[in-house]
Amino acid sequence: MSKKPLILVTNDDGITAPGIRILISVMNEIGDVVVVAPDSPQSAMGHAITINSTLHCQKIKIDNGPQLEYSCSGTPADCVKLGVNEILDEKPDLCVSGINHGSNSSINVIYSGTMSAAIEATIEGVPAIGFSLLDYRWNANFNHIKKYIKIITLKALEKGIPKETTLNVNFPNIDKGEIKGIKICRQANAYWIEKFDKRTNPLGKEYYWMTGEFINMDNGKQTDEFALDSGYISIVPVKHDFTDYDSIVKIQDWKL
Amino acid sequence: MSKKPLILVTNDDGITAPGIRILISVMNEIGDVVVVAPDSPQSAMGHAITINSTLHCQKIKIDNGPQLEYSCSGTPADCVKLGVNEILDEKPDLCVSGINHGSNSSINVIYSGTMSAAIEATIEGVPAIGFSLLDYRWNANFNHIKKYIKIITLKALEKGIPKETTLNVNFPNIDKGEIKGIKICRQANAYWIEKFDKRTNPLGKEYYWMTGEFINMDNGKQTDEFALDSGYISIVPVKHDFTDYDSIVKIQDWKL
Repeated sequence: MSKKPLILVTNDDGITAPGIRILISVMNEIGDVVVVAPDSPQSAMGHAITINSTLHCQKIKIDNGPQLEYSCSGTPADCVKLGVNEILDEKPDLCVSGINHGSNSSINVIYSGTMSAAIEATIEGVPAIGFSLLDYRWNANFNHIKKYIKIITLKALEKGIPKETTLNVNFPNIDKGEIKGIKICRQANAYWIEKFDKRTNPLGKEYYWMTGEFINMDNGKQTDEFALDSGYISIVPVKHDFTDYDSIVKIQDWKL
Repeated sequence: MSKKPLILVTNDDGITAPGIRILISVMNEIGDVVVVAPDSPQSAMGHAITINSTLHCQKIKIDNGPQLEYSCSGTPADCVKLGVNEILDEKPDLCVSGINHGSNSSINVIYSGTMSAAIEATIEGVPAIGFSLLDYRWNANFNHIKKYIKIITLKALEKGIPKETTLNVNFPNIDKGEIKGIKICRQANAYWIEKFDKRTNPLGKEYYWMTGEFINMDNGKQTDEFALDSGYISIVPVKHDFTDYDSIVKIQDWKL
């Protein structure tokens, strides 16, 4: 029998979040698990990394599972860099990030700490998947999606994720019986309209809370938003070559 | 004569950094300028946004130029969201970000606060350009690149940047006479190998400083790295649809 795969687990909600604890339990059924995750919530950190301050990282034990765990002071992308380049002696066979409490579909991928960790792993040559559930609540129910996480992870290990590609997996916020299946999708073209709630602090100084409304401009049936709205799990293959190849010729025509 | 363009200026090195002061001076020659920039350095912040804490923003005056200026507590992406959705009464005609002290070529685009601000503007429907100089020093010489920034900006306003595209402009760290011209490029395939310098603080607790070495795996002559190494200014058109379209069919073949 071949060696069990070495799996690096991280997230952006922090190492004690229910979502990552569920993900760890599923990965323990598949391989040897090492967790390197933020010691505090790091949602919406995008692909931030810590270059102007120090990082702390300590080995901890949170439950009775067989995994090794490290709690780190940095961002999700820092955790992957630390895991791959400092903590692990060999390159992991897979990195999984999540399960995020909330959607990382569509344009949310760009703000997502969960996905930045997965993309960072891909950049470092480690196949990677980000998992997210469209339920922001801390006590969201992850149990019914464990089955699908295992299926997707085993298939990715068997078939091999294309090089330079990261899988962005989102689960609709519906009950077990209502999930219709899995769709491979493109990222829907959407954005957030921000509203700034202006307030005054007890010292008289003004400050803002940013809130937003998600606007989906894309009716395409191949989009992640359409799949999720229709009761499917969406998988978007994501790349980190951001070049807009179609625009190269257009801008060459500017004759700069 | 038509109305002057309204230009939003931001950066990630902070509102007092020499790079943004030079960029503001060039933009004042082109349009009506409003600056919304971080009150402190925000390098390597990626596309982080501030959703779990408050934002402060105050009108300030730093020099005698005609621009309006706002100094904000958030990330570069926050600054653009505040500028477009709260501070400005009308949508700007252009957003420029920079001039970054240091490279945002190749994979650096993904970690870059400068580029995240420009990409955020594009997402919000505002044409945008990020400018970076391959010189990390605070006292870097930006004077000889002012001419090119003006040329590129005027051309972008005249021709129109393709919708959904952001321009990532990098300047080689060479003298005026040595700049050979401008190349429209693709993002080179490169990554950083991190090293973690482990130290012990005065209380006996271990911590790390992250350092890295840039590894360019891409010899392509159409890349930004090749252009910059050859003495050219590189312009990479960047998009925020991260879908890897080539991988969709491959993953559909997994029959999930």
